[in-house]
Amino acid sequence: MRVLGVDPGLTRCGVGVVDIDARRRASLVAVTVIRTEPGLPLEQRLLAIGTELAELLDAHRPQVVALERVFAQHNLRTVMGTAQASGVVLQAAAARGLSVALHTPTEVKAAVTGHGGADKKQVTAMVQRILRLDAAPKPADAADALALAICHGWRGSPGSVSDGGARSVPEQPSTPAQEAWRAAEKAAAARRLDR
Amino acid sequence: MRVLGVDPGLTRCGVGVVDIDARRRASLVAVTVIRTEPGLPLEQRLLAIGTELAELLDAHRPQVVALERVFAQHNLRTVMGTAQASGVVLQAAAARGLSVALHTPTEVKAAVTGHGGADKKQVTAMVQRILRLDAAPKPADAADALALAICHGWRGSPGSVSDGGARSVPEQPSTPAQEAWRAAEKAAAARRLDR
Repeated sequence: MRVLGVDPGLTRCGVGVVDIDARRRASLVAVTVIRTEPGLPLEQRLLAIGTELAELLDAHRPQVVALERVFAQHNLRTVMGTAQASGVVLQAAAARGLSVALHTPTEVKAAVTGHGGADKKQVTAMVQRILRLDAAPKPADAADALALAICHGWRGSPGSVSDGGARSVPEQPSTPAQEAWRAAEKAAAARRLDR
Repeated sequence: MRVLGVDPGLTRCGVGVVDIDARRRASLVAVTVIRTEPGLPLEQRLLAIGTELAELLDAHRPQVVALERVFAQHNLRTVMGTAQASGVVLQAAAARGLSVALHTPTEVKAAVTGHGGADKKQVTAMVQRILRLDAAPKPADAADALALAICHGWRGSPGSVSDGGARSVPEQPSTPAQEAWRAAEKAAAARRLDR
């Protein structure tokens, strides 16, 4: 399954494309950050995001789009721009017959690192490990977009997004990330014992 | 000047097109409400709004789009959908080379009725009077979209929308609505004296 993940934003909109094979092994296809100038009129910024995203969808042909669910409670100053960018992303996907799955930041962190309270550094480190990258994906928006794509590929859709609200996701067995995380911790403990 | 006003929303998105002549006389060109089913996936609802709005822009060829400025502070439950619909509207306008002016509800009410605290009934009544309509425009979303278009035609743009924040608009001389309102009040007072 090919998933295109989007971490929406007006100034920086992260986009990451990941393939997940039948054995849940994730591979990097593409990653980029769409940037728009804060000085541009809002409508031109959204058009630029829509145009670049359409090109990425047409170039990489994902089967599904995974988008971060935006909450009005957080970051009041930037949330409207983030929601407007999300609207443009949702429309671009639907125009190509693609469905969009919304995942909360907590769901994404839990899927990728094994705990929902992970910080940005841990998410970035796990994305690098999961995708077997030589360097950490930067900036954070790029890592978050990849984490979203991986999360969706591993967890699947939490269901239709039409309700617009949070919904509980049933407990699932350990993800490859959780297993990798545990293996890494075990290896680190073993190294400490060696010293 | 031809202005297309949009009162954004997922379930009901009001669209009103108004011509304003050199003497600031406003005339109705078209009014409609784009509706989408709450049961549809979010991405399909936004695509439907974008598609219908594009058709209206192409059919009526306004010179500018006036859009209600959405605040994150209000209506937390629906604000994200409203902002996403706004994003789609902004992009559709920019794709046609049109600029978008954002006006707050208070600015719109003040321009159309003469006072920023007017209720929906007063706004609808003044829109009907200003456009010389036989019946009141319904539903409220349709009246609000027409009021936005009239507001923009009379007040002009409060400036670039790129700052994303509220900005003060200099005091202006009486609008035709304010004059009409005063004339109506005077007439009503005269009628009361006649009795």
